[in-house]
Amino acid sequence: MTSDESSTHERAERTGVWFVGAHGSVATTAVVGALGMRHGLAPRTGMVTELPELDPAGLPALDSLVFGGHDVVSRSLAKKAEALASGGVLPAALVGAVGAELDAIDADVRPGYVAGEETVAEAVHRLAADLGAFREHHDLARVVVVDVASTQPPVADPESLRSLEDPLPGAAIYALAAFEAGAAYVAFTPSPCLRLPVVVEAAARARLPYAGCDGKTGETLVKSALAPMFAARALELRSWASVNLLGGGDGATLADPETARSKTSAKRSGLDAMAGRPVPGPMHIDKVEDLGEWKTAWDHVRFDGFLGTTMTLQFTWQGCDSALAAPLVLDLARLVSAAHAAGRSGALPELAFFFKDPVGGTEHRLAEQWRDLVAWRQGLDR
Amino acid sequence: MTSDESSTHERAERTGVWFVGAHGSVATTAVVGALGMRHGLAPRTGMVTELPELDPAGLPALDSLVFGGHDVVSRSLAKKAEALASGGVLPAALVGAVGAELDAIDADVRPGYVAGEETVAEAVHRLAADLGAFREHHDLARVVVVDVASTQPPVADPESLRSLEDPLPGAAIYALAAFEAGAAYVAFTPSPCLRLPVVVEAAARARLPYAGCDGKTGETLVKSALAPMFAARALELRSWASVNLLGGGDGATLADPETARSKTSAKRSGLDAMAGRPVPGPMHIDKVEDLGEWKTAWDHVRFDGFLGTTMTLQFTWQGCDSALAAPLVLDLARLVSAAHAAGRSGALPELAFFFKDPVGGTEHRLAEQWRDLVAWRQGLDR
Amino acid sequence: MTSDESSTHERAERTGVWFVGAHGSVATTAVVGALGMRHGLAPRTGMVTELPELDPAGLPALDSLVFGGHDVVSRSLAKKAEALASGGVLPAALVGAVGAELDAIDADVRPGYVAGEETVAEAVHRLAADLGAFREHHDLARVVVVDVASTQPPVADPESLRSLEDPLPGAAIYALAAFEAGAAYVAFTPSPCLRLPVVVEAAARARLPYAGCDGKTGETLVKSALAPMFAARALELRSWASVNLLGGGDGATLADPETARSKTSAKRSGLDAMAGRPVPGPMHIDKVEDLGEWKTAWDHVRFDGFLGTTMTLQFTWQGCDSALAAPLVLDLARLVSAAHAAGRSGALPELAFFFKDPVGGTEHRLAEQWRDLVAWRQGLDR
Amino acid sequence: MTSDESSTHERAERTGVWFVGAHGSVATTAVVGALGMRHGLAPRTGMVTELPELDPAGLPALDSLVFGGHDVVSRSLAKKAEALASGGVLPAALVGAVGAELDAIDADVRPGYVAGEETVAEAVHRLAADLGAFREHHDLARVVVVDVASTQPPVADPESLRSLEDPLPGAAIYALAAFEAGAAYVAFTPSPCLRLPVVVEAAARARLPYAGCDGKTGETLVKSALAPMFAARALELRSWASVNLLGGGDGATLADPETARSKTSAKRSGLDAMAGRPVPGPMHIDKVEDLGEWKTAWDHVRFDGFLGTTMTLQFTWQGCDSALAAPLVLDLARLVSAAHAAGRSGALPELAFFFKDPVGGTEHRLAEQWRDLVAWRQGLDR
Repeated sequence: MTSDESSTHERAERTGVWFVGAHGSVATTAVVGALGMRHGLAPRTGMVTELPELDPAGLPALDSLVFGGHDVVSRSLAKKAEALASGGVLPAALVGAVGAELDAIDADVRPGYVAGEETVAEAVHRLAADLGAFREHHDLARVVVVDVASTQPPVADPESLRSLEDPLPGAAIYALAAFEAGAAYVAFTPSPCLRLPVVVEAAARARLPYAGCDGKTGETLVKSALAPMFAARALELRSWASVNLLGGGDGATLADPETARSKTSAKRSGLDAMAGRPVPGPMHIDKVEDLGEWKTAWDHVRFDGFLGTTMTLQFTWQGCDSALAAPLVLDLARLVSAAHAAGRSGALPELAFFFKDPVGGTEHRLAEQWRDLVAWRQGLDR
Repeated sequence: MTSDESSTHERAERTGVWFVGAHGSVATTAVVGALGMRHGLAPRTGMVTELPELDPAGLPALDSLVFGGHDVVSRSLAKKAEALASGGVLPAALVGAVGAELDAIDADVRPGYVAGEETVAEAVHRLAADLGAFREHHDLARVVVVDVASTQPPVADPESLRSLEDPLPGAAIYALAAFEAGAAYVAFTPSPCLRLPVVVEAAARARLPYAGCDGKTGETLVKSALAPMFAARALELRSWASVNLLGGGDGATLADPETARSKTSAKRSGLDAMAGRPVPGPMHIDKVEDLGEWKTAWDHVRFDGFLGTTMTLQFTWQGCDSALAAPLVLDLARLVSAAHAAGRSGALPELAFFFKDPVGGTEHRLAEQWRDLVAWRQGLDR
Repeated sequence: MTSDESSTHERAERTGVWFVGAHGSVATTAVVGALGMRHGLAPRTGMVTELPELDPAGLPALDSLVFGGHDVVSRSLAKKAEALASGGVLPAALVGAVGAELDAIDADVRPGYVAGEETVAEAVHRLAADLGAFREHHDLARVVVVDVASTQPPVADPESLRSLEDPLPGAAIYALAAFEAGAAYVAFTPSPCLRLPVVVEAAARARLPYAGCDGKTGETLVKSALAPMFAARALELRSWASVNLLGGGDGATLADPETARSKTSAKRSGLDAMAGRPVPGPMHIDKVEDLGEWKTAWDHVRFDGFLGTTMTLQFTWQGCDSALAAPLVLDLARLVSAAHAAGRSGALPELAFFFKDPVGGTEHRLAEQWRDLVAWRQGLDR
Repeated sequence: MTSDESSTHERAERTGVWFVGAHGSVATTAVVGALGMRHGLAPRTGMVTELPELDPAGLPALDSLVFGGHDVVSRSLAKKAEALASGGVLPAALVGAVGAELDAIDADVRPGYVAGEETVAEAVHRLAADLGAFREHHDLARVVVVDVASTQPPVADPESLRSLEDPLPGAAIYALAAFEAGAAYVAFTPSPCLRLPVVVEAAARARLPYAGCDGKTGETLVKSALAPMFAARALELRSWASVNLLGGGDGATLADPETARSKTSAKRSGLDAMAGRPVPGPMHIDKVEDLGEWKTAWDHVRFDGFLGTTMTLQFTWQGCDSALAAPLVLDLARLVSAAHAAGRSGALPELAFFFKDPVGGTEHRLAEQWRDLVAWRQGLDR
């Protein structure tokens, strides 16, 4: 093969992005956005992998991404996109322009896992078969499974979950299916699954990379930019109160206190890690129906300065959840696919930049995570 | 000399800290705080040079600092400290405990420069003589002059100011006196002086280090932690509005629009540098008398995310100006003295961490500045 | 005439609403909204005159309003409505549904007054003739002229403006034309005109009612709800800082400091009146282009409580300017027309509820204004 | 008796103020403040009864108030005052000036009721005897008992509590003792007791007035000023989220969710009453230890305006709990004593201005409550 052929081949290489929760707001926004950027109908704002520091030319091209997924909801992608457009979350003109493509992608959305309808082993095999068929059908070089389904409750004793016979949470089944099918895996949702021995061992056996958990999209992102400021200035955090008001989608799931705990514990542990000790203060996640896809966070920080003088910083963050999450999901698909292509396997702690609760790493400070990400990306090509 | 003798000698070595504006809030708070920490009456909160990353043991000990200064105001340090205590800015018990020491230090506060009362050349020689006498009297290894006087208006054509005959701003005269007396110099105040050829050349001739300008203590500090977050996430800043409400002290000086411009232009240029382009939005500095030593800032940031969705971040900062500035002033005295001892000269851009408008450097991102500072500090001992 | 006939006649009675600035955001939103409500396509949210306390059945029906106006801008109402829809300010479906009606209304929009193109006397007569033709053509019982044009700069010596030969501001010319044509007048814009002898005397001669000035739509509305709280609780206001960030439309006009003064002085005098003394604190109005039709205000209030303890209240208001103003404009047209029908003339201070700078009255407290309005409305029918 | 004698007599008349929770922050602040005002050492800021609208001259003079109380905590008033002074809540100089008087008052603080140590009937008689002795000893014209003890949990079935044999909450026992002793009663704490038949009937039998419940001191105060604004402008509340961060004192009590419910349900019902329907949104009360006597509230309000445009108002309130409550407690003692003197008995709904959960009334709007209070006060003298 000549180098020209190789380059041609590489250009033609396509990457599958398989969403668990393909009919949800995040996946829909990611797909519509990817199509919009492909057709020059949308800017690349929010795409970290389009920044020069991450050398976009060496990553799977946005044009080369092929979408599919699992979902337990049968509503079509186009319908979901229209709903998001009428809620002002997606531009109506863009949704109109890509409607036919959304319908084509829907042909690659398969029924998800519903507990009780099949055994875990059956489910893993069925889901893996879906992935295999998707790769074959589209002649894909690689597939990355990205879990953007609803938040899962925490698991009581993760260490005890070692085989398919154990009572595995739903998310683990998708991860096992990914590894069985030779696909890399990203947990963008708060999920215990990447810390279960049964999952970790499956990834190791299959020599596949994975990254997670819980996309850092809003209030925790700001926290991870601000907390190091207090540390570097020797200002002592006295309390940090956090309130998150979430609209319909994720808000609904988090109305269950057990599930909410999954999210607040990730948020809290990051702050404590950055402060070097537990920082007191309440942390609330509330559903406020009329916020729709939007979320508002208020943080109130008290800190001591020189001679014990107590001072205050407050911030309010008003963001659109799916608009914050969707580009990161595309970024992760590109980066994890590139890692897979470069032969990396196991946890990818250098992707901590994207997560509230980074698997395999302990760095929560945003600037350090950014530096780690850039260095890792540069090392990937060598 | 045995190594024991050397160590004894080092322990005994003392560093002079000479304040321009010795009777102001910042200098008074710094002196009271240094005495309080020395006697174990105050915590080291807010002291960056007490963080392990900066290896405090290798810096001039807080116990070894000897204070003096210039001021055009004759009110005593003790009176100023009492006023700050009754305003709730300094702990009353602490001020009581160090009153006698404050009076002793006042013996080393000399009359400052008043335009028109002497020629520039006369002033430089007189002020330098004060510094020399201070060093000799206290047997000091080194002296650092720290300008904490009021904000100075900007200079129309800095490049044209090349000799003592030119119309020099007041701050330049103190800097020239410092260099004539062999002392290092820190401009903690917004000041044009470290960019005047006459000053830069004097420092070069005397092979002395200097650092500045304009301590980064509040809203700009937060900005420098947050702006890189938007950049690293490829979020596009649409506008950034800033409002600073300042109490009596600095607020009064900034009622003069010309002087205020000196401060807002430093704030603005930093943001634009971090964003990589001019970010529109008003920037106000207002005096609100009843705030006293406190300042409140409100920032309103609009940014675009994926598919052009516009989102908002707001923050409110409520800080005590002198409590924020005083520990940094002590930090700078220690660090610049150590640089002087290590033979460094000229601008010290690695101290950009402390400044809104870093001389000799262009880095405004707080986390990068912190990394640069730590690396520089580690290199100082080699 | 039987009572049945009378009732039929009343039902058929129509009221003209003539906008000065008919092609602007406020007039366009008011017209589109009125049509939308008429067709059952929009809720009556924000319409004060639809509250039972104001007895809507006794006011001119929304269905009976006929729209026209003056403007110096020739762009069509439909184009402006589409622009507002694409900016997310008006529902696109609604704008589509009423497009044809907008074009019909545009036939009643006449060229406005441009200084220098005609004498003041000529202009008054021409504009009055437009109003007369409008009334005749549509067989209107009454016409109310509502000025929603851009903010006008203040007038140096209002008392001196007594005849058409004096240098009258543009707004006065429209008011004089209204009175010449027998129409009532509302100054919804900050405008000096209702305090000029030449205008006041013309209204008196014509026995016509008028109301103004400067619609209370956002930050000042909140202020007028909060300031009485401090007074009734004997809490002493120490400072009240206000920052208004305005988007394109009104923001552009207010970039002129002279014009901005027209607006801030109205805001300030209301607060001082409610506090019973001048309350210090900066008051800013800034244009922030990317806000579009939206405005954001931040207020920071410091107040003393028991034993002089200083406390703080801050608020942030995020509102859509035209959505806030448009229903009030319709409310005022209905109420002033009813006052005209009831034989009222001169200033209507009981409508202070709607204004930052009420003409003929001194009450700024929102709850008292509401009570005054309800009482006045009830008295109107007797 | 001549009118001169009468006037002399009235001047000499003294009123007892008896605190349930006499050693707490609110009672201590009220007593220190009353003494401070008496000696001209403190301003009358925050005293509603010093406003001319309430005709202070006709109310019991501040000089004529005599303090005593019950508490289960034996720490002295002077010690508590010193603790508040060192926390910056009370001026240290003032506490020093009134120390001896505080000790004298402590002689009139008697042990409170501890469940299980005596029967309810015994407790009522003992506490009433304390009140009788206090009145006799000081030759008081009247006594008002003011409950400023910690928040009490709600009662499951208030209607069922009809006799001393029923399981009465602690607060009821103090109210019963007050009525047995001929004293008026104010529930400044969230408390179910003024809605228990056993208490209501005891007040009726004794022909004594009472007022409550739950002092409206902070976030709910602001709410009651703002919610009517939305109603009068026909703006539709979509959601109202409230977060209250409280420091040590009351915060500790409210860590018990059952007790917190007592407070949030009062807050919520007032908002719903003002809106005319339930307004969704979370309502949190959190303890944040380091806030001490201070509390911070953040409210986030979403509302619909014209054509359904959704807008937002946020506010942050930073107040000192005891400085907000203490003057109201003195106001209530004066007003309820005047009502008692004027022969009023039963619930005093016209004092709703002071309460989150007004007994005997349904008006929550602050401006209406203020008007009702002023009218009632004027009627009292006739």
